[in-house]
Amino acid sequence: MKNSITMNESRFWKTMVVSNGIGTHRETGLKRLAFTEEDKAMRDVFVQWCREAGCEITIDQVGNIFARREGTVPGSDPVAMGSHLDTQVNGGRYDGILGVLAGLEVIRTLNDEGIETLRPLEVIVWSNEEGARFVPTMGGSAAFCGNWDLDFILNAKDDDGITFEQALQSTGYQGSAPLPSRRLDTYLELHIEQGPILDAERKQVGVVVGGYAVRSLVIEVKGETAHVGPTPMDQRRNAIVGAAYVTTALNEIGWKYHAEDAKTTTSRIVAFPNKQGIISEYAEMMVDLRHPTQAGVESMLAELKQAIGKAQQRAQVSIQIVKELKYGMDSFDKEVISAVKQSVKKLGYDSMEIKSQAGHDAYQVALVAPTAMIFTPCDMGYSHNEKEDATPEQLSPGLNVLLHSALARANRPL
Amino acid sequence: MKNSITMNESRFWKTMVVSNGIGTHRETGLKRLAFTEEDKAMRDVFVQWCREAGCEITIDQVGNIFARREGTVPGSDPVAMGSHLDTQVNGGRYDGILGVLAGLEVIRTLNDEGIETLRPLEVIVWSNEEGARFVPTMGGSAAFCGNWDLDFILNAKDDDGITFEQALQSTGYQGSAPLPSRRLDTYLELHIEQGPILDAERKQVGVVVGGYAVRSLVIEVKGETAHVGPTPMDQRRNAIVGAAYVTTALNEIGWKYHAEDAKTTTSRIVAFPNKQGIISEYAEMMVDLRHPTQAGVESMLAELKQAIGKAQQRAQVSIQIVKELKYGMDSFDKEVISAVKQSVKKLGYDSMEIKSQAGHDAYQVALVAPTAMIFTPCDMGYSHNEKEDATPEQLSPGLNVLLHSALARANRPL
Repeated sequence: MKNSITMNESRFWKTMVVSNGIGTHRETGLKRLAFTEEDKAMRDVFVQWCREAGCEITIDQVGNIFARREGTVPGSDPVAMGSHLDTQVNGGRYDGILGVLAGLEVIRTLNDEGIETLRPLEVIVWSNEEGARFVPTMGGSAAFCGNWDLDFILNAKDDDGITFEQALQSTGYQGSAPLPSRRLDTYLELHIEQGPILDAERKQVGVVVGGYAVRSLVIEVKGETAHVGPTPMDQRRNAIVGAAYVTTALNEIGWKYHAEDAKTTTSRIVAFPNKQGIISEYAEMMVDLRHPTQAGVESMLAELKQAIGKAQQRAQVSIQIVKELKYGMDSFDKEVISAVKQSVKKLGYDSMEIKSQAGHDAYQVALVAPTAMIFTPCDMGYSHNEKEDATPEQLSPGLNVLLHSALARANRPL
Repeated sequence: MKNSITMNESRFWKTMVVSNGIGTHRETGLKRLAFTEEDKAMRDVFVQWCREAGCEITIDQVGNIFARREGTVPGSDPVAMGSHLDTQVNGGRYDGILGVLAGLEVIRTLNDEGIETLRPLEVIVWSNEEGARFVPTMGGSAAFCGNWDLDFILNAKDDDGITFEQALQSTGYQGSAPLPSRRLDTYLELHIEQGPILDAERKQVGVVVGGYAVRSLVIEVKGETAHVGPTPMDQRRNAIVGAAYVTTALNEIGWKYHAEDAKTTTSRIVAFPNKQGIISEYAEMMVDLRHPTQAGVESMLAELKQAIGKAQQRAQVSIQIVKELKYGMDSFDKEVISAVKQSVKKLGYDSMEIKSQAGHDAYQVALVAPTAMIFTPCDMGYSHNEKEDATPEQLSPGLNVLLHSALARANRPL
C-alpha cells in the first residue's frame, strides 16, 4: 500500500455539484427534507454511484442506506463512514452531505488505486438527521442504535400529519434489514464544523474528541379560550403568553451561561386557535439547551424548571415538559481518535482538538460502536443557512484524513 | 299599534336550535368560520326564513346580506338590526347569532300582529365579523362603511392561502350591491355582553353607550436562520425570542393598566422555519390593546413601542409594526341610545349603561349611521369558548327592547 495516496478531489466536487442541484433553495442553499421527492432523487443518485463503484446496498426499516465494499477477511465487522443527505428547511450544501460523499470518494479512490482492506468499508446514509420534517433529529441513527424507541421514530408526524413511515414508504426506501442489530467495527463521520472556531484559529482539521451535552425538550402550555376584549387580565389564561415567559427566561439562562459557551434556543412555537380575537388555549414549544458539560446543562435545566413554575403563575396556565431527549457524547472512542490524530500527523496538517456543539449521527452510533468525528473549517461558521460555505482548500485536509483514518482502522490486525 | 306586543320567544328559540346544529363543536359550541360549508348552510337557512317572512334579499360585494321588510313611506331609509352568523374556531352559540335571529323574529312578530312601520326594517348579516378565518375582524361591516380599503378586505388570505373573495364566491354569496353606498336611518345590534358585569350586577339589559378604544397590530420580527448548537448567544438573531420579549412586555403593560380595566393580548404567533435544530428568521404576531379611553390606549401603545425597542436589542432582531387598526366608538348615537332607554323604561326592565369591550360591527356602522347596541347578560361572561351560554330569562328583556326600539325608530315622523 502506498503511503502517498490522496483523494480524487475533483471527482468528489463533481458529486457535490450534483447534490447542489437537487433541492436548490435561495440560490446557494438546499431544501431537501427527509423523504421528499428531492431526498429520494438524491438517494437514487447516491445508490447508483455506489453500485457503479461495486458496492452492495442494504437498507433498513427506517431507510438508513449501507453501501458495502467487501474486505479480504470474510465475516469481519465493517469500518463505516457516513452522515446524512437530508437538510434543514433553509439548509446549506455541506451539512451532512460532505460526510456521505466523502465516504463514497474514499471507496472510489481505493478502487482506482487497486487497494483492498482487511475489513469491509461501508458508507452510510442516515435518515432524517435534521429533524426538520420529523421530530426528533437523528431519528435514523437513533433507531439503528436502539437508543430511542422505534415506534416513536416511525410514528413521528410532519406538519401535514404524514408519518415518518408513510413518507419513507412513498420513496421506496424502507428496507428489510432489522433494527437494532448491525455491528460496526468503527464509525467515522467527516463534517463541517458549523461553528467559527477552526476558521478563526486557522486550523486545517478539527479532531473531534466529544460533543456538547444537549437537552432537547417538548413543552406543552395549556390555558383556555376566551374573548380578547372583555376578559379581565386576572381571568385570562393565554397559552401564548405562558410560552413567551418560558422563552424569555430560557434566553436569559443562555446569556447567564454564555461565558461558559452554553446556548439556549426556543426553536418552535405552535399555538391554537392562534387567531385574532381569541385567547389561545394551547401552545407547543420545542426548546434546546447546550453546555460543554453534563453538569452544566443539568444546572441550566434546573433553572429552566424554576422559570417554568414562575411562568405558570404569571400567565395563569399549566406548563409541562412532555418529552425530554438527552444527547451529547462526553468523549468519543480513544482508539479511533488516536487513529485520526495519526493520520493528521502523517499528512502534516495543522489540527486542534475540538468538541462538537451540533448534534450528529455520530453521537448515536458512538453508543454502540467505536466512533470519532473529523471537522473541516467552514466560512464564518454559517450553517442551517444558505450562506453555509466551504472552499476546496478548507475541505481537502479533512477528506484525506478520513481516507487514511478509515484505511488504518480497516487494516488493523484481526 | 298595541303597546303590549312581545316577541314570540318560543319561535326565536327554535331558530337558535337550528343554528346550534350547524357547525356544532365540542358539544355546546360552534365552529362556523366565514364562507365555509357551515357558514353557507346557515346563510341558506336564514335567507329562506327571511323570504318566508316576506323579505326582499339584497347581497353586496363582500357578502353582507340585507333582508328588507318594506315600510309604508316609499323610499325612506331603513331601520336596520343585525350582527353576524360566523363564529370563532372555538366559538359559542350566541355571539353574533343572537342579533341576527332576534332581528328576524322582530319582523315575524310584526307580521303576526299585522303591524306596519313607516320606514322599512332590515335584518343584516355582516360577513366575517370574527376575523377567525380572514384578518381583519369586522371585515364585512368595515367594507360596507368604507372604513377599511375594499381590496384589503377582499384579498385577505386564510391559513391555506385562500382569499376572502375566493371563499365568498365558492359559497355563492357574492352579490352585486356596490360598496360603500347604502344609507341606514338607524342601526341596532343586540348582543350578549361577553363579559361578567350584567350577570354580576343582576341587570336585565345593558344600554351600550360606547365602546372601548382598541388598537389591533400586526407585528413582524426579522432575524436570521442559524444552527441552534454552535451559534454563540451573541451571534443569534432568533425571531421567536424577539416575539417573546414583545409578548411578555405587552402582558406586563396589561397588568399595569389592569386597575383602569385595560387588557392586552398576543392572539397569534407564526414563525418560520419554526423547526427543531434551526433558529427562526421570521415571526408574525397579532396583538391587541384595549382601554376604556382613547388616551389610555395611546399611552399603552407608547409603552409597547418602547418595549419593542428593548426587545429588538435583547434578541438582536428587527421588529416592525406593519399594520395598525384602530377601532372603538367613544359614544354611540344619543338619539338611538335614548330610544333604547325609553323602551327599557316602558317595558319595566332593570338596566344599566355599559361600554362594550369587544369589537362589534356596530363600531363600523356607527361611522355612517345613527347606531346603538343592546346587551343581554350571559353566563359568567364566557365567550369565544364552548361554555358561552345564556338562558331564556337572560335574553328575553333584550329581545323585547330590540323590538320596541326598532319600532320607535321606524315610526318616527318623517
